[in-house]
Amino acid sequence: MDTLTAIRTRRSVRRFEDQPVEQETIRTILEAGFCAPTARNLRPWHFIVLRDMEVRRELSKAAGNLSRLVDGDCVIFVCGDREVQEREEFILEDGAAAVQNMLLAAHASGLGAVWCGIRTEKDLHEAVRRPLQLPPNILPVAFIVLGHPSEHPEPKNRYDESKVHWDRW
Amino acid sequence: MDTLTAIRTRRSVRRFEDQPVEQETIRTILEAGFCAPTARNLRPWHFIVLRDMEVRRELSKAAGNLSRLVDGDCVIFVCGDREVQEREEFILEDGAAAVQNMLLAAHASGLGAVWCGIRTEKDLHEAVRRPLQLPPNILPVAFIVLGHPSEHPEPKNRYDESKVHWDRW
Repeated sequence: MDTLTAIRTRRSVRRFEDQPVEQETIRTILEAGFCAPTARNLRPWHFIVLRDMEVRRELSKAAGNLSRLVDGDCVIFVCGDREVQEREEFILEDGAAAVQNMLLAAHASGLGAVWCGIRTEKDLHEAVRRPLQLPPNILPVAFIVLGHPSEHPEPKNRYDESKVHWDRW
Repeated sequence: MDTLTAIRTRRSVRRFEDQPVEQETIRTILEAGFCAPTARNLRPWHFIVLRDMEVRRELSKAAGNLSRLVDGDCVIFVCGDREVQEREEFILEDGAAAVQNMLLAAHASGLGAVWCGIRTEKDLHEAVRRPLQLPPNILPVAFIVLGHPSEHPEPKNRYDESKVHWDRW
């Protein structure tokens, strides 16, 4: 799929067929994550691929949008290592860039996906940390729910001239 | 350019030809930014396109990597509106997703680009805010320096098995 087409037609997909995602496609998507740029090229990410429904069910009880963890065939958790990148803003941005690459790679591979953010509250992080057995230096940033799509939302043109400024505000 | 190829071959470009970027290409790149997903679909971004060298020179004196602002033909500043999205972590992540889309769109359009992060220190934000005349609710997240590339860094395979975990850490 052409790059600009992939960017323009990618939409969040939240309904999935009951059909497994091929291991090779997961590898392609992870590779796309690793291709994202990072601040000072430190690459602080870790990716946790969740297929085990027991782990996902336990996690999904934690809070908020974590209930989405049981949707789809597969979930990729994106984390950052505070010992590699000390600045939280860059862990979040590096994680988001990897997520965006993975969403585009999934879409170009014919899969559907939705990005679920994780708020930075400590208690929420703790609720995620235990079931995943995350070490204390590992910050969970977001997760992606992936699968073969059973909905195909139409592309939208979101260009908004009022949010584009020339040379100053 | 094929999506997976664009993701795999995109590298940071910091050296540029003395040749203007076409207005139409800037529009394509901005459109790509607007196609990125955002938390709760709030789309808190604002994009400031800088071509005026006087504004860029003033800004570049501010601090750190802002010196890069005078490179390239064109700079796109990515900001987020705190009145639209109150959570700073999501302003940063939404901004980063838009940046990544724009970097890929630039690469697919034959341009080179580099992502420059902005640390969240208040004094740095103030230094950026004044020359750009940003209102107090607008948070600068990052900027992209864009131009016709005069260097063509080789793609690198950055897949790192030690950073991929299955079902738990």
